[in-house]
Amino acid sequence: MKLYSYWRSTTSYRVRIALNLKGVSYETVPINLVAGEQRAPDYVALNPGKGVPTLVLDNGEVLTQSLAIIDYLDATIPEPLFLPENQLQRARVRAAAHTIALDIHPVNNLKVIAHLKSRYGFSAEDGIEWFRHWMTEGFHAYQALLPGGSAFSFGDSPDLADICLIAQLYNAHRWGVDMTPFARLLEIEERALALPAFAAARPENQPDAT
Amino acid sequence: MKLYSYWRSTTSYRVRIALNLKGVSYETVPINLVAGEQRAPDYVALNPGKGVPTLVLDNGEVLTQSLAIIDYLDATIPEPLFLPENQLQRARVRAAAHTIALDIHPVNNLKVIAHLKSRYGFSAEDGIEWFRHWMTEGFHAYQALLPGGSAFSFGDSPDLADICLIAQLYNAHRWGVDMTPFARLLEIEERALALPAFAAARPENQPDAT
Repeated sequence: MKLYSYWRSTTSYRVRIALNLKGVSYETVPINLVAGEQRAPDYVALNPGKGVPTLVLDNGEVLTQSLAIIDYLDATIPEPLFLPENQLQRARVRAAAHTIALDIHPVNNLKVIAHLKSRYGFSAEDGIEWFRHWMTEGFHAYQALLPGGSAFSFGDSPDLADICLIAQLYNAHRWGVDMTPFARLLEIEERALALPAFAAARPENQPDAT
Repeated sequence: MKLYSYWRSTTSYRVRIALNLKGVSYETVPINLVAGEQRAPDYVALNPGKGVPTLVLDNGEVLTQSLAIIDYLDATIPEPLFLPENQLQRARVRAAAHTIALDIHPVNNLKVIAHLKSRYGFSAEDGIEWFRHWMTEGFHAYQALLPGGSAFSFGDSPDLADICLIAQLYNAHRWGVDMTPFARLLEIEERALALPAFAAARPENQPDAT
């Protein structure tokens, strides 16, 4: 498989974790979002949303949107499962994952902050404040959804919610979010990053990291 | 079931469509987002994300996040299915749905525009321009992902992508998005709104509509 990704993109990071957990080997094709490579016509033909990641399967089929890709991987590669079999538990894990993937990440996306800067005159400091605001709000909600008493967010092995959480925490550290209220999330992070699948997926370990 | 919802919330609208398509009867509990009812302590205990919708099942279990709720309904109530059985097709429908549910809606969420106004001095006109910008970008991406030649987005019956699309189009009309480039989406909308499940879910047909 080929993964079109950007080292600092948290949605790319999610899919890297998922591929590594499933034991799928893949080739990274770097798309430099800061240089605008996601808007090149050849790339837009693959991914009309002009974003990363894009996963191209060995048979040439093209998948976009990180959560749709992770669901595909979970449905087609049995072990380890990213979602519980029980539908109610599954809905709970998905809801927590979406608290990050829908309520935090899209609002803090690079293209949103770039638009706020170019069109509305946001300063670099405004941008950092913006990032912190949505992460702090979202992490409170995420933490409140956790049952507690498990090694990871919902159980003793990482699931879809953990995949979204760990990727988002990279941004939290990068932008200096005050993590004092989120000790539980930092414990989960420490445990996750000790696993080879997560460690290999970290932004700084990607071929395009600078 | 009880659905905590707000008439103009497009995420509530998605779940109303899904419940109606599955033939599930439910009681609406209005949460007035403009009056801030989503921040009342009793409601936050149900939904720590301080958003709508929240679905309370007959056994008292509480589900949050519209896409997680719709997945739950699709997995537990067999007909009609909102996602194809084929995993590759399923990933395609999900990716299109996410182009709306992740790339448009969260950025245009009421709480985001409220924050832009209160903290960064956005005017009402700035807000409308902001809404239009993200919808126009996102609808181009959505339309490019459609295979064409079907009555609805991916087939001859409505699926998860259509559910997200129809709800978002309510906002597009409300905020005056120029729909000239999106004739295909308007055709799908016309067909969907002719179905009773969609018509009954429309914002203006809710008990809290004003």
